Amino acid sequence: MKPVIVVHGGAGRIFKEREEGSRAGVVRAALQGYDILKRGGSALDAVEEVVRSMEDDPHFNAGEVEMDAIIMDGKNLDSGAVSAVKCIANPIKLARLVMEKTKHMLLTDNGAYVFAQAMGVPEIPGEKLITERSRERWKKNLEPDSNPEEFQKDLGTVGAVAIDSEGNVACATSTGGLSNKLAGRVGDTACIGSGGYADNRSGATSTTGHGESIMKVVLARLILYHMEQGLSPEVAADTALDYMKTRVGGLGGVIVVNSSGEWAARFSTKQMSWATVKDDQLHYGIYAGERHTKSVDEALASEREGF
Amino acid sequence: MKPVIVVHGGAGRIFKEREEGSRAGVVRAALQGYDILKRGGSALDAVEEVVRSMEDDPHFNAGEVEMDAIIMDGKNLDSGAVSAVKCIANPIKLARLVMEKTKHMLLTDNGAYVFAQAMGVPEIPGEKLITERSRERWKKNLEPDSNPEEFQKDLGTVGAVAIDSEGNVACATSTGGLSNKLAGRVGDTACIGSGGYADNRSGATSTTGHGESIMKVVLARLILYHMEQGLSPEVAADTALDYMKTRVGGLGGVIVVNSSGEWAARFSTKQMSWATVKDDQLHYGIYAGERHTKSVDEALASEREGF
Repeated sequence: MKPVIVVHGGAGRIFKEREEGSRAGVVRAALQGYDILKRGGSALDAVEEVVRSMEDDPHFNAGEVEMDAIIMDGKNLDSGAVSAVKCIANPIKLARLVMEKTKHMLLTDNGAYVFAQAMGVPEIPGEKLITERSRERWKKNLEPDSNPEEFQKDLGTVGAVAIDSEGNVACATSTGGLSNKLAGRVGDTACIGSGGYADNRSGATSTTGHGESIMKVVLARLILYHMEQGLSPEVAADTALDYMKTRVGGLGGVIVVNSSGEWAARFSTKQMSWATVKDDQLHYGIYAGERHTKSVDEALASEREGF
Repeated sequence: MKPVIVVHGGAGRIFKEREEGSRAGVVRAALQGYDILKRGGSALDAVEEVVRSMEDDPHFNAGEVEMDAIIMDGKNLDSGAVSAVKCIANPIKLARLVMEKTKHMLLTDNGAYVFAQAMGVPEIPGEKLITERSRERWKKNLEPDSNPEEFQKDLGTVGAVAIDSEGNVACATSTGGLSNKLAGRVGDTACIGSGGYADNRSGATSTTGHGESIMKVVLARLILYHMEQGLSPEVAADTALDYMKTRVGGLGGVIVVNSSGEWAARFSTKQMSWATVKDDQLHYGIYAGERHTKSVDEALASEREGF
């Protein structure tokens, strides 16, 4: 199987001045994930590492005050997730530890904190996680009941899906969640079937967008059902996103890979930053219809020169 | 539409000395839910009230130290859930408040606690929620890594599904979760699509059993997919439970009602206490193949005499 990686940097509205940084960020992440896969790394390792590096990238702002993350292995349907975690740098790494070191699948809040300490995950002060941009959002959106459309801008979610040379698929999603949400709000990301799903028999997907709508339709699992019925990743993604829009009025975006290595990056929001590498070709974009293509060699050369 | 209520008191192993209490408890709950529906109450009100009364019933032990609950309205896919909540009597009522009073769908731990306070939900000392029986379990199962089969006994989950006279379906599930679980472990119950799902277009289901297995296959949503494909509630339930057993080695039980009012109560565990009322007939059982039938009038008369 030829390896494929697809990444997203969140669906919603990306402010003009941040478009270039978002493009560069998803491209860098996709190249990094592809490199892991080409060197024989597993899909699971690739999606974890890619999401970890995007969690660290201030362009994406995943990693805010309360964070959710999920990782899933399509081989055996194993999954690990954390919700409402604070004061750690990389929730996706903690999610993988939940998967591998416990019999559970989802740890939340204080319990996740205690587990992180037991695993020796370093604690970092919460303040460091609040970037200047998210601080601004807090100032501007003081009303918890203000228009949910506002919340859809710049959600701070990142994700990756991959298929490796052995045909295993995996997904990972990580988010800082909504601005000005209620404390303790858990969105779609940590919820298996909503924020992501991976099954070697059909494929893998990671979602982003209006979390409550994604949960109502259990979006990730819905996309894989459509693929199980024979739809391509692109048609499955569009069908599910259309359904979410008409049935519950929600917008979002998804990345998908199927068990044959076909992929899609689709969204009903105005924008979603995404990038993919397959057959040594990089593709990426932010707007609907936007798709740039480069060889990996060319892209790596640009990277070295400063994208 | 003729109203139907189906309830369960948890799947797993029910100790001999508790069988009669479990039978009586699910029968009482089903009769109560049916009464609400017959008097024109909504499916949503019926499942909430039934689960609330089972949370209060020491036979079922839902309502332990850390509790999860979910409720879902099949009309618009609205749902509310809480996870890892402590010190409140009725998590299902808090789940409904999350659904109706916030823009979110799932609140966890401290956030759920703060929300409960804001809603004026009375706090009760955690100690009161630890029944003598669950105290015994803690004493006997001190090893967090002991056989997960042990954990399947007596899970302390309760649930209900209903269809009302207007054809609306709803589900509710509430659990005290595993004994000796890690603090902060969130199981299937609070996770939409796993612990329950309701959609007027197909039906409603509430699940119980090995939570991590239920999550891996997103069991509730899976059953509704099978019904969307034309399977009856019974065949859909059995197909999904078989899949969970063969794919991830997990056992569980489910109650289902479809949009035509057909129902099923199926389980792959040794036992599941269940009861249903439809057409003024009560059915109930605990073991596979066990099914008692009475008229509602007869059952109410027995109730009055002490079941």
